[in-house]
Amino acid sequence: MPLMFEKPLGMIDTLPALYERAREVRHHIERETETWGYRPIQTPSLEYYDTIGEASAIRDEQLFKLLDREGKTLVLRPDMTAPIARVISSGMKEEPLPLRLSYCNALFRAQQHEGGRRAEFEQFGVELVGDDSMNADGEVLALLTSGLRASGLSSFRLAVGHIKYMNALFEEIVEDEAMIDELRRYLYEKNFVGYRQFIDQLKITDDEKDRLRQLQTLRGGPEILEKAKTIAHSRQAHKAINEIEDLWGILQDLGVQDVVQVDLNIVGQIDYYTGIVFEGYGGSLGFPLASGGRYDELLGKFGRPASATGFGIRLDRLLEALNHINEGNLQKQPTLILFSKERQQEALQEANRRRKNNEAVVMQNIAGVPDIETFTKKYADVVSLTATERRGEKDDA
Amino acid sequence: MPLMFEKPLGMIDTLPALYERAREVRHHIERETETWGYRPIQTPSLEYYDTIGEASAIRDEQLFKLLDREGKTLVLRPDMTAPIARVISSGMKEEPLPLRLSYCNALFRAQQHEGGRRAEFEQFGVELVGDDSMNADGEVLALLTSGLRASGLSSFRLAVGHIKYMNALFEEIVEDEAMIDELRRYLYEKNFVGYRQFIDQLKITDDEKDRLRQLQTLRGGPEILEKAKTIAHSRQAHKAINEIEDLWGILQDLGVQDVVQVDLNIVGQIDYYTGIVFEGYGGSLGFPLASGGRYDELLGKFGRPASATGFGIRLDRLLEALNHINEGNLQKQPTLILFSKERQQEALQEANRRRKNNEAVVMQNIAGVPDIETFTKKYADVVSLTATERRGEKDDA
Repeated sequence: MPLMFEKPLGMIDTLPALYERAREVRHHIERETETWGYRPIQTPSLEYYDTIGEASAIRDEQLFKLLDREGKTLVLRPDMTAPIARVISSGMKEEPLPLRLSYCNALFRAQQHEGGRRAEFEQFGVELVGDDSMNADGEVLALLTSGLRASGLSSFRLAVGHIKYMNALFEEIVEDEAMIDELRRYLYEKNFVGYRQFIDQLKITDDEKDRLRQLQTLRGGPEILEKAKTIAHSRQAHKAINEIEDLWGILQDLGVQDVVQVDLNIVGQIDYYTGIVFEGYGGSLGFPLASGGRYDELLGKFGRPASATGFGIRLDRLLEALNHINEGNLQKQPTLILFSKERQQEALQEANRRRKNNEAVVMQNIAGVPDIETFTKKYADVVSLTATERRGEKDDA
Repeated sequence: MPLMFEKPLGMIDTLPALYERAREVRHHIERETETWGYRPIQTPSLEYYDTIGEASAIRDEQLFKLLDREGKTLVLRPDMTAPIARVISSGMKEEPLPLRLSYCNALFRAQQHEGGRRAEFEQFGVELVGDDSMNADGEVLALLTSGLRASGLSSFRLAVGHIKYMNALFEEIVEDEAMIDELRRYLYEKNFVGYRQFIDQLKITDDEKDRLRQLQTLRGGPEILEKAKTIAHSRQAHKAINEIEDLWGILQDLGVQDVVQVDLNIVGQIDYYTGIVFEGYGGSLGFPLASGGRYDELLGKFGRPASATGFGIRLDRLLEALNHINEGNLQKQPTLILFSKERQQEALQEANRRRKNNEAVVMQNIAGVPDIETFTKKYADVVSLTATERRGEKDDA
C-alpha cells in the first residue's frame, strides 16, 4: 500500500496543539470584526467553474477542477471574493449597501511542485461592499490593524499602494500591453532584479527607463507622494496619489498611520483590483500574511454593480508570524482521573466537579489502558480512583 | 450566463443569522468535549482515493473524485473516521492509547438528485481510540448526551443497538450473504415494509420468518434484552446482548440512561462498525442528527491495530432540530454610527467606547451610503454625528 499514509501535494494534518492555537487566534480576530459590525457568511467549497472559476482570476492551473454528473466543471473555491460577490447579487440582493461581511474558510490552490506551499489554507477576511469613499479603504485598513493586534501580533506593517498609479506610469512610458503585464508580473513576484533587467532591454529613452526604475524607490512615509507625482505625470497617476493622500488623513484620524507605509510597487495578488491595494507583513515572514484592496468592477459582473474593498488574512502565515505555539498552550493537558469499575460514580462526581470549573478532565477506566506508564505520562495531573493498589504515577487523589 | 448565480447540486450559502447560530452551537459542543479531555484535530479536504476513499466505505458514487497532476485519484473527504485513523497511524503514532480526539469539518457526499440533500455538510465528532472496554462506549454516549444538552437541545433520544446481534440473528436463519446484505439494507434505509415483504419471500420456515419479524419489536427499555435472547440463540448473539447489559449499567452510573433506548434494528451508517451502534434523534426530525458506534477493525488497516468508538453530529440537522434561528439572535443587529468627514474622530471615539463593551458598532461615512433611508432601517440604533442637518432616522446622538 504505497499511498497508505500519504496526503496529496500541499495538504496537511493539523494536530491538537496547533489547531487549538489557530482556533484561539481566529476567535480573537472574529470577535474584533464582529464589534465593527461585520457579519459572517459561508459559501460552499465547490462552485461552478463558469460562475466563480473565471471571475476569481486565480490562474487556471491553480484550480482544482472536477466534473459533476451532468458534465459541468466544478472548482474548489480558490478565493472568497468572487463567491461573496455571487451571494451579494443573489441571496443577499435585498440587503441595502454598504454591506459588511466576514468569512473564515478554506481556500484551494493546486501546487505544481513539492516545497511546502499549501494547496489548502484557511483565510479570514472581510468585504465592505457599496461604499466608494476613501473611508471604506481606511476602515478596512484600520480593521486589519485591529484584527492583527487582537491576534497578539506585536510587530507588523501594512504597505499601501495604488494600482492605478502603477498602471498610469507604465502606460505613459510603455505602449505594449503585454510588456506592461510583464512589468507588473515582476513586481507581483517581487523579482526586482528581473524588473530592472527587463527595463534595460526596453526600447525607450534613458529618462523613461530611469522613471520606471524610480518606481522602486517609492516606498516610505507620505513624503514620497510628492516625489511620485514627478515620476508619473498623467492626470490618472496624480488622481491616484491624491487618493492615497486622502487615505493617509483618514488613517491618521483612525490612529493607525504608525503601522502603515506607502509602497507604490504593490500589485495586489489578483488582477481585479481597481484602486488602493495593500499587503500586511509581520514577524520575520518574507511574504505577506494579509492582502487586500479595492475592486470596484467585480460586483457588476454578477449583476449588482457596486464598489468594494476588503482584506484576507492567511491564518497559516499569521500563526507562523506569531511563532505559532506558545508554551502555555502546549502545557494545557487535561487532568486524568483513572478509575476502576466499582468507583466509576465517584470518578464521575470528581470529573463533574472539575469540568464545571472549565477544567479539562479525562475519565479513564484503568482496564481500558494498554500501557499505563506511557499513558499517564501525557497528563500533568493524575487522580487515581482504583479499587486495587494505586497504580497512577503521579497520584494526588 | 445561465449559471451566474447557480451552485452545484446540494451546495448552499449560509447567511449571517444562520451562520452565527451555527457557530454558537458548535462552540457549546466544542467546549463540552474539551472539558472531557478531547483535543481537536483537522485533516485535509482532499485525500488520496487509495488511502481514504476505499476505507471510508461511503458508496463510490457518493464520492467527489478528481485527478491530480500525476493522474492519481483524489477524493473530497466523505467522512472523518478514516482520515483520523490515518493520522493516528502516522503523525500521532507515538501518542499513547487511549487517545481522545475531536473534529469539526465539512464532509462531502455527491447527490444524484434534486431534493434538498446536502452534498457538503459540517460534522462535529469525537473518536475514542484504544479502549476496548464498554466504558469507552458508555463515555461516548454520555458525551454525546452532554454535547447535545450543551447545544440547547432539550428533547432528544439515543437509540442503541449492536451490529453483532443483528448479524448473528441473520446468520442463524439466512445462509446467503447477499440476502443478509439486503435485509441490512432495508433496515439501514428504515424501509420496514420492504423488510417484511422481503422476509415473506424467503425460503425459510414460518418460525424463522417470525423471528426475523420479531427483530422489529426489539425496541424499548432494557427489558427487551431478555426477549432478544429468545429470538437469536447463538453464543455470538447472547454475547452482544450481554455487552448491551454491561453498557446499560455504565449508562446508569453515568446518569444518562433516561435519554437512551435499546433498538436492535440499528445498522449504523457505515459498514465498518463492529459492536455497539447508535443514532441520536431530536426535535421532530425524522432522520438521525447524530450517529456512531464501535469500529475495532479500521485502525488495523492503517497499521496500528486498536479498538475505537466515536460519534458524529450533523450540525445542519442539529440546527434544524433546534429550530435554528431564535429571535434573540435575529435582533442582534449592530449599532450604526453615521458620521460626516469632519466628525470622524468623534465617531471613532464613540465607536471605541461601545466596542470595548462588546457592542457591535458600524461606523459609516454618510457620503458612502447610496440610500440612507433603506440603509438605516437595518439598524436597531442609529447615532448620527454629521455636520450637516441630521439625517439619521432614529437619531439618539
